[in-house]
Amino acid sequence: MSPNLSGLSRRTVLSALATLPTFFGAMLPLSASAQTATPGSPLPSWNEGAAKQAILDFVRVTTDRASPSYVSLEERIAVFDQDGTLWVEHPMYSQVVYCLDRVPAVVAKQPKLKNVEPFKTVLSGNREAMSKLTMPDLEKILAATLTGMTVEEFNAEVNKWLETAQHPRWKRPYTELIYQPMLEVMRYLRDNGYKTYIVTGGGQDFVRVYAERVYGIPPEQVVGSMGGTKLGYNKGRKPFLTKEPKLLLNDDHAGKPEGIHLMIGRRPYAAFGNSIGDQQMLEWTAAGAGARLEMLVLHDDATREYAYGPAAGLPDSKFGTFTQALYDEAKKNGWSVISMKNDWKRIFAFE
Amino acid sequence: MSPNLSGLSRRTVLSALATLPTFFGAMLPLSASAQTATPGSPLPSWNEGAAKQAILDFVRVTTDRASPSYVSLEERIAVFDQDGTLWVEHPMYSQVVYCLDRVPAVVAKQPKLKNVEPFKTVLSGNREAMSKLTMPDLEKILAATLTGMTVEEFNAEVNKWLETAQHPRWKRPYTELIYQPMLEVMRYLRDNGYKTYIVTGGGQDFVRVYAERVYGIPPEQVVGSMGGTKLGYNKGRKPFLTKEPKLLLNDDHAGKPEGIHLMIGRRPYAAFGNSIGDQQMLEWTAAGAGARLEMLVLHDDATREYAYGPAAGLPDSKFGTFTQALYDEAKKNGWSVISMKNDWKRIFAFE
Repeated sequence: MSPNLSGLSRRTVLSALATLPTFFGAMLPLSASAQTATPGSPLPSWNEGAAKQAILDFVRVTTDRASPSYVSLEERIAVFDQDGTLWVEHPMYSQVVYCLDRVPAVVAKQPKLKNVEPFKTVLSGNREAMSKLTMPDLEKILAATLTGMTVEEFNAEVNKWLETAQHPRWKRPYTELIYQPMLEVMRYLRDNGYKTYIVTGGGQDFVRVYAERVYGIPPEQVVGSMGGTKLGYNKGRKPFLTKEPKLLLNDDHAGKPEGIHLMIGRRPYAAFGNSIGDQQMLEWTAAGAGARLEMLVLHDDATREYAYGPAAGLPDSKFGTFTQALYDEAKKNGWSVISMKNDWKRIFAFE
Repeated sequence: MSPNLSGLSRRTVLSALATLPTFFGAMLPLSASAQTATPGSPLPSWNEGAAKQAILDFVRVTTDRASPSYVSLEERIAVFDQDGTLWVEHPMYSQVVYCLDRVPAVVAKQPKLKNVEPFKTVLSGNREAMSKLTMPDLEKILAATLTGMTVEEFNAEVNKWLETAQHPRWKRPYTELIYQPMLEVMRYLRDNGYKTYIVTGGGQDFVRVYAERVYGIPPEQVVGSMGGTKLGYNKGRKPFLTKEPKLLLNDDHAGKPEGIHLMIGRRPYAAFGNSIGDQQMLEWTAAGAGARLEMLVLHDDATREYAYGPAAGLPDSKFGTFTQALYDEAKKNGWSVISMKNDWKRIFAFE
């Protein structure tokens, strides 16, 4: 397992640990999808402004047959980063919470791990000690919790976790902490013939478990950090696939255009991100001919969500950073910066 | 570059060389796609019989809402091997012909290769000498002709080759040597809500170049042997992707279910192949619940196409073999064996 699986840096993981009240997930029922019908206007949760207008203009010029920027139906591809672009990434990436939450179950199956690091420290719940875990320690946790089981077992484990885990601030399932305005953009693009893809540094198989239900995005349209699988047969000659600790692609930074080429084989016309991990994906999108849409979500709303990163005039974040340089590149190239505070009427469906 | 890229064995490549009259492709215009409209019956090029009936029955029970085997629209996935299943694989896989044909252009760009093996031997055109090339030699040829260029350059090179190369027997472009009955099956499945995928041991990027035009299958639905790419920037900071000599997945044998999981993330309901390289894909498909369709094309028509392999009562083939054991497994499990001779009214659109 690569140190970069899921695009996680050690700093990201460890400094986030200190802020997380609990990671063993209280028992809460999983609410239904946050997706609701869109009455009238296609983007009801968006305030009028340059960001909303950029989306409407892009769809108009690429779908009107009389437009010089018309894009044929099969070429209409839109890609979305996930963490911080489609759902909350604070105070810790949900997938990391998942991996830590899985440690007790892994140890229950292999009891001798109980006194072996890093599992011993994770089991202790001592966040001060956990913040001192090394990168190889974290790799062991990722490998132990994300690989070694069949793909069906993994799906079942993630589904079970999603039903019970909750975000420490909102006390709600992570799958409710989806940005409603982004759901509306995805639906609007699909209504106009665009195929919507998630392109995430997170694990491809992890995101696939809930992407269809939560985002309306089928598993074949989830591009993420990819691990290998290995075919085996049980005693009845029935084949099964086991998740292997072998990283095929780290789908972050340069890995995003590489992953897009691998999984889609076409250059997107629209790309949405929120950090330097998405920069190359937006550049790759922008380098195509014709009308293209590049948008960056700026986390500048400490009241309703979070505010972080230099582009919001705030200290460097432990998350994929929206740097001043990225902000300048966006402005220079005509990319849109979405202010969560100013552009979004509401952030979550439950508001 | 793995020795197994494209699912090619040394025996496959080398023994085929001896039978190929020329591989530098005469100049012939590329004809339009072999796809034509389907009047009346959905499978006009199929004779009545068990194979045709199996397809009709499968579609009926999986798309009729009243059927206990009904499959929801988003789950309808059908996968097709390419070489020997969708188009002619004799006397040599087209992609190998392509690689050999590209050698002069590669040497023109790097003249010092002219006197370096294996390029020197390939340039000589001496098939006797070529048949003695070693596996590492072939790897060098694959690496030199399939990697090192941008993805756009590669697409342009393959497109140019497809316009001029011709099959030695029919003197037609390779893209005309598509099995018309299989085009009809793909169209029939799509008309009934199935997403059709190619799952090939051949290079994913190679097949993507013509799959949409020839099979109606978009690039994002081509699963093949996958190489890595690497993001770079030119002087104007414009990003480009270079094809790297790094094999991510050899999409043959066990690699087929692994590739299906990686690229699609769902188990197919229908799978079509013709050899032991497809066996695991058919087993993986068959292991799912509900009605599934598994079909194997048997090359038993020496007059209209070729006859080879033990299952046709013929000596072992240099191609992905349809063994007696695979034939027995098919019969035992209720998989359909398609006799080209008896089940297909015509084989090519140009007949």
